[in-house]
Amino acid sequence: MKRAPIVGVMGGGNADFSTLKQAEILGGLIAEKGWVLLNGGRCTGIMEATSKGAFEKGGLTIGILPENHSEGMSEFIKVPIVTGMGYARNTINILSSDVVVACPGGAGTLSEIALSIKCNKPLILFGFKQDSDFATLLNRQGLIYASTPEDVIQKIEELLRI
Amino acid sequence: MKRAPIVGVMGGGNADFSTLKQAEILGGLIAEKGWVLLNGGRCTGIMEATSKGAFEKGGLTIGILPENHSEGMSEFIKVPIVTGMGYARNTINILSSDVVVACPGGAGTLSEIALSIKCNKPLILFGFKQDSDFATLLNRQGLIYASTPEDVIQKIEELLRI
Amino acid sequence: MKRAPIVGVMGGGNADFSTLKQAEILGGLIAEKGWVLLNGGRCTGIMEATSKGAFEKGGLTIGILPENHSEGMSEFIKVPIVTGMGYARNTINILSSDVVVACPGGAGTLSEIALSIKCNKPLILFGFKQDSDFATLLNRQGLIYASTPEDVIQKIEELLRI
Amino acid sequence: MKRAPIVGVMGGGNADFSTLKQAEILGGLIAEKGWVLLNGGRCTGIMEATSKGAFEKGGLTIGILPENHSEGMSEFIKVPIVTGMGYARNTINILSSDVVVACPGGAGTLSEIALSIKCNKPLILFGFKQDSDFATLLNRQGLIYASTPEDVIQKIEELLRI
Repeated sequence: MKRAPIVGVMGGGNADFSTLKQAEILGGLIAEKGWVLLNGGRCTGIMEATSKGAFEKGGLTIGILPENHSEGMSEFIKVPIVTGMGYARNTINILSSDVVVACPGGAGTLSEIALSIKCNKPLILFGFKQDSDFATLLNRQGLIYASTPEDVIQKIEELLRI
Repeated sequence: MKRAPIVGVMGGGNADFSTLKQAEILGGLIAEKGWVLLNGGRCTGIMEATSKGAFEKGGLTIGILPENHSEGMSEFIKVPIVTGMGYARNTINILSSDVVVACPGGAGTLSEIALSIKCNKPLILFGFKQDSDFATLLNRQGLIYASTPEDVIQKIEELLRI
Repeated sequence: MKRAPIVGVMGGGNADFSTLKQAEILGGLIAEKGWVLLNGGRCTGIMEATSKGAFEKGGLTIGILPENHSEGMSEFIKVPIVTGMGYARNTINILSSDVVVACPGGAGTLSEIALSIKCNKPLILFGFKQDSDFATLLNRQGLIYASTPEDVIQKIEELLRI
Repeated sequence: MKRAPIVGVMGGGNADFSTLKQAEILGGLIAEKGWVLLNGGRCTGIMEATSKGAFEKGGLTIGILPENHSEGMSEFIKVPIVTGMGYARNTINILSSDVVVACPGGAGTLSEIALSIKCNKPLILFGFKQDSDFATLLNRQGLIYASTPEDVIQKIEELLRI
């Protein structure tokens, strides 16, 4: 791949402080690698935290927005993509990512995890318990888990080498 | 609601014979109630089975197709909606349904279950085990389960009365 | 085609009384032929007029709605398809129609005319002047014009026979 | 606006050499201003020419792709957005642009011109004759025309100042 890899980080609009802090660190590490950060673009939760982390390290941040305008966008997004397609934009998030990192979230994040599997995208679950019931539900062997931002980065590097 | 309710039935393109038979019966019962059946429109699995059941009882069948043409459509679909939007059409499936019935399936079906919850749609899980881990994962109390086609119909009636 | 043809009628949310009256008559004639009427589903202009005409003759009316809810829908729509995709739903309007009839409208209607040509859909311009500049702009020979509802019906029959 | 403006350049997959050359120069000028170039991302016509011009001047190039993969993408696109939404992606092109520049093209480009007007986006027609019939058709006063790449840039600056 000649262009910089695009790392999509998915996760909830609400998250506890520790999860947000980890997400911000992850965003910074993605930027330091020279990778592009892609997320849902809004000014809340995992989206805001990863955008802030990447932006402050000089990274390129792409936000795929659900509305037909850019209100509610994170100020740390450099390129807003305004879809006007509501939740259907989640499909664009996944299709546009070379690697998907899913952080804890609600039903929206779960739909993105499911779409990643459906689209055969490399997927890293960050901050989830290695819950065997979850793996059973998702009906796939070999889900990749990571527990720290550094661990996520290492696993992205392994996946991109493939 | 003055118009006929729209019942969206989601489920995999592959399913075992017993599940398909149950889905066909469910389609027929939906038609006999005078309800509209909506599904993903393709000629495989749960989509084909429910369409056939409803069509043969004279029901109205709507198929929300992923491609930009109608090849691969079930012959039992009366009104194909050609979206050309790939997996993003799953969002339309859910938004257009007054009640969603999820049958067993893979990652695509899981994404539709997640979207139903995200969109606050009445949701019935048909043929799933009342697995507490599943409920935990979906992070919502009060998921409604049904084990027979007749049970699904009764639960739809209860939900529509609300 | 075993299923009933789907006739998509496009046109503005605002129109003068005479145009609306013609659109209502056209909707009725489509229903009397046993065809399905598809439009943008809202309770204004050409959408409302054609839906009313078809509904009152017992026809099946499908409305492809732009919002993620059904508020603002015409009461004469029997099956609302809720897309949540804003103007992108115009693509679905065109792809889902076996024949497109364009009535006078604004920029939204013009985009649907352009998409019909792009998608190689049979297209009838109803109530437009046979303006040679318009044809030049659209860069296609053989645009089909009709001046009365009966004329539209006759031209649909000719196109469907192909 | 704190972030760099996004200039969407629309135009056909086929164009004559002179038009392509002008488009390439325009892409370069957009990059030299520090603006982001957004287009349909494919390796043909106006898309390829503008991407090449911007890329070679070190600009950021965003391609909104219609397919669910990135085959057929211009090699000069730095960030591909993979929509899987076919022509519906034209809506995203327009909504995401702070200013739209339309170059000559076919029905697809016409649909983007129409959508720009529908969405009230600042719109510059580049290389079109100031054809009064065209303006009549589009039913809007005050369409802005430009005849050289430098003229386009000057008009973008005027529009962004507003």
